[in-house]
Amino acid sequence: MRKSSSLSDEPLSKEEPVEKDFIRVFSRVFQMFEKPLLSGSEFDDCAAVRLDSFCRDLSAESLTFSTDTVRESSDFPKSMTPWQKGWMAAAVNLSDLAAMGSKPVAFLFSAGLPAGFTLTDAKTLAQGIQDAVSFFGGEVVGGDTEFCEELTITGTVVGISENKNLTFRKHAVSGDLLCVTGAPGSAGVALSLLLNDIETAVSVSDSFIKNLTEPFPRIAEGLMLSKSGAVTSMIDTSDGLAFSVHELSSLSGAGFEISEQALLSAADPEALEILEKRVLQDIKTQNNDNGHLEDARDAQALLLQNALYTGGDYELLFTVSPDKIGEVEEIFRTYNESCAPDFNKLPSDGKSGRYPCRFTIIGKAIAESETVIFRQSRSEQIRRPLLKKGYDSFKKYI
Amino acid sequence: MRKSSSLSDEPLSKEEPVEKDFIRVFSRVFQMFEKPLLSGSEFDDCAAVRLDSFCRDLSAESLTFSTDTVRESSDFPKSMTPWQKGWMAAAVNLSDLAAMGSKPVAFLFSAGLPAGFTLTDAKTLAQGIQDAVSFFGGEVVGGDTEFCEELTITGTVVGISENKNLTFRKHAVSGDLLCVTGAPGSAGVALSLLLNDIETAVSVSDSFIKNLTEPFPRIAEGLMLSKSGAVTSMIDTSDGLAFSVHELSSLSGAGFEISEQALLSAADPEALEILEKRVLQDIKTQNNDNGHLEDARDAQALLLQNALYTGGDYELLFTVSPDKIGEVEEIFRTYNESCAPDFNKLPSDGKSGRYPCRFTIIGKAIAESETVIFRQSRSEQIRRPLLKKGYDSFKKYI
Repeated sequence: MRKSSSLSDEPLSKEEPVEKDFIRVFSRVFQMFEKPLLSGSEFDDCAAVRLDSFCRDLSAESLTFSTDTVRESSDFPKSMTPWQKGWMAAAVNLSDLAAMGSKPVAFLFSAGLPAGFTLTDAKTLAQGIQDAVSFFGGEVVGGDTEFCEELTITGTVVGISENKNLTFRKHAVSGDLLCVTGAPGSAGVALSLLLNDIETAVSVSDSFIKNLTEPFPRIAEGLMLSKSGAVTSMIDTSDGLAFSVHELSSLSGAGFEISEQALLSAADPEALEILEKRVLQDIKTQNNDNGHLEDARDAQALLLQNALYTGGDYELLFTVSPDKIGEVEEIFRTYNESCAPDFNKLPSDGKSGRYPCRFTIIGKAIAESETVIFRQSRSEQIRRPLLKKGYDSFKKYI
Repeated sequence: MRKSSSLSDEPLSKEEPVEKDFIRVFSRVFQMFEKPLLSGSEFDDCAAVRLDSFCRDLSAESLTFSTDTVRESSDFPKSMTPWQKGWMAAAVNLSDLAAMGSKPVAFLFSAGLPAGFTLTDAKTLAQGIQDAVSFFGGEVVGGDTEFCEELTITGTVVGISENKNLTFRKHAVSGDLLCVTGAPGSAGVALSLLLNDIETAVSVSDSFIKNLTEPFPRIAEGLMLSKSGAVTSMIDTSDGLAFSVHELSSLSGAGFEISEQALLSAADPEALEILEKRVLQDIKTQNNDNGHLEDARDAQALLLQNALYTGGDYELLFTVSPDKIGEVEEIFRTYNESCAPDFNKLPSDGKSGRYPCRFTIIGKAIAESETVIFRQSRSEQIRRPLLKKGYDSFKKYI
C-alpha cells in the first residue's frame, strides 16, 4: 500500500519531510496530467488503467516489461540536476522498449531518497520523470518512496505491441548489415570530461554533455524499424556497443565484423575535437613535445574506446538484410523530414539535440562465430577480437 | 538493457561476483518455469508476454500496477532468511493487487545487493520470489540487479481485471459494515518479539513468527470479494489498520466506528497469550508484585496497539452493505471448505498457516466524518478518536 491521499496544498517548506510529504509532492506533479485511469495509485492500492485507452493505433496483443535502476554513485555525475536524474530514470527504461519496438503505456518508479533530499528536489525530480514519460509516450501510473543511503530510482516500464512487430535479438543472420543510430561514444566522452573536471578547460557545448545526462531513448525510431519488417534483430547500447554486439552474437549464433572507420564516421565531430584537445593538453602538461603526428590517431583511439566500451549512449543497434537497407534509409528520411518531436513540450533542459536521427552501417554479420573489429589501410586489414566488456553496476565508474 | 544471456552452468563459488554473475543465478531460477512468453528478459531488452495467455478465465479490460520496496534496515528483522526476503518482496506487492480484486499476471524486481551477498544468497532470494509469484499467480518476467549499501528489493506487479470487478477505496457509505480478514496485530506482536530478542524467553510457534516474515497476500479472497459485487470498498492493512481505515474515510467521506471488543475477537489467541506472558515477565523483571488483576487488560491494550498501528499484517479491510453480509459469509464458507491453496507447491517455509481465512465485522461506516474506536461496558460506551498513524518508511522501525 504505502500511499497517502492527503493532497492538501501545504507549503513545500518543512523540516525533516516524511514519506507522506514526498508522496504528496509526487502526486501533485503526476496528477496535473490527464490520464486514462480508472484510478490513480494515489487513491487506491494500485493504479488501474483501461487497456482500450492505450490501443488507438495498434492492437495490444502483447505486453512488454522492463525494470532498471539508476543511483547517485554509479549513474549521476556531480553536475546533474534533480530534473535530469528523474528524466534519466525514465529514459533508461524507455530505451529497453525502444529496442523491442514496443509502445510505452505505463511507467512506475520507486525512489530511495537520502537524508537532506528536500521536497523541492523531489518536485523537480518528479517533473523530470513526468516530462520524459509524457514526451516519449505512456503515463506515470505509480510511485513509491522510502529512505535510502543514496538517491536510488528504480523504474519499471510497461509497453504494448502487436506480436508480429516485436523485434528480438536472436534473428540476425550472416550477411545482415549491422547499423547503429546516433553518435556512439558521445556519452562516454562527456563522462570523461565530467569525471576529470576538465569541462571548463576544454570548451564544450551544453548539448554535448546532455548526451550523457539526458539520455534520449529511440522510441519513435524503434517503433518504425520494428513495424517495417526490415530489421532482423535489435538491442540498445546502454551497456556499451561492444557488449551489445556480443549479445546479438550469442543469441543469434552469428559473428560480426565491425569497421573502425565506419564506427568513427558515426561519431560526433565534437567528440573527436574534444579528445584531440585533451590529447594535446595532456602532452603539454607532461612537457612532452614529441608525437604531434600521433595526436589525431590517439584521439581516434580514445573515441573508439568510448564508442565500444563505455555505456550511456542508449542508441539502437540493429541488423538489416542488405536488400532492405533502402527501406531503412527511407524510414529515417521520412522521419527526419516530417516527424519532428514536439520539443516545445519540454523545458529548455530537455532539448537534447538528438534529432534529426541518422543511422550508420558499421559492419555486418558473418558466418564465423568470432566477433572482430578491423581497420582497413591501403595494403592490409588489421583484425582484432572485439572484447566483451562494458558497463557493470557492481564496478562503480563515477 | 543491463541483462546478460550467459546462462552457462558455472559453479556457484566465485569471489566478488559481479552483475552478470547475479543475473545468471537469477535467470537459472526463473527459467525453470514454463512461461507464456514471446521472450524472457534474459534474452531481450524487455520481457514480452502474449496478453491472451493470461486471459483464460477473465477478459483483460484493465491493467493494474503497483510498486513497493522492501529493504534490510526497515523490513527485514535479523532472523529472516534470504528465501523469506524474496517472498516478502513479492508478497507486499501482490497484496496491493488483492486489495483491488485484480489478478496478478507479471512481477518484476530490482535487487540492490550489498557487499558480501553471495551467489547462494541470490539463488535463495530468487527462489523466494519465484515461489510467491508462482503460488499467488503470474510470472516473474524481469529482474535487474545493482550494488547497494544494504539489501533493497523493489518489486513491481502488474495485474488484469474486468472493469466492473475492480474495487476502490472511495465507495464506502454510511451504514456499511467494516470487516477485516485474518488476525490483525499478529505481525506487530511477532515484530516486538524479534526486536526485543525475547522469542526464546516466551515460547512461540514458528507459524506465528511467519505472520511477520512471510506475508500472505489475500489474492484469492480479494478476487472473490470483488467479483461478488457485495463489497463497496477495499484496502490492505500493510501500513496498519488505523491508517487504512482513515484512507477509506478520506476517500469515501464516511467516518467509521470500530469496536475494541470486535477487533480483539479477530486477533489470534496466541498473540494475546504471548503478550500476557510478556506483561507478566516485565512485572517480574521489575520486581513489581502489584497489578496482577490488570495483566489481562494490559495485554489487551498492547494487542490493540499492534492491531491498529503496526504495519505488516497485509490483511484485507473492506466494507459491505448489511444486506449483503450473508453473501460474504457464504464466499468465505465455500472458499474455506473447497478451495484450499496447494501448499505442497511450496517448500516447508511457505506454509504460513493463513488458511482457512476467516473475516470479522469490526465496526461500521457512519454519517459523521469523525473516526473513532469504542469500548463497550455494561453501563457505558467509551469512545476515543482513532489516530491516523502507522508505518512510515522514513522512520526506521527495525
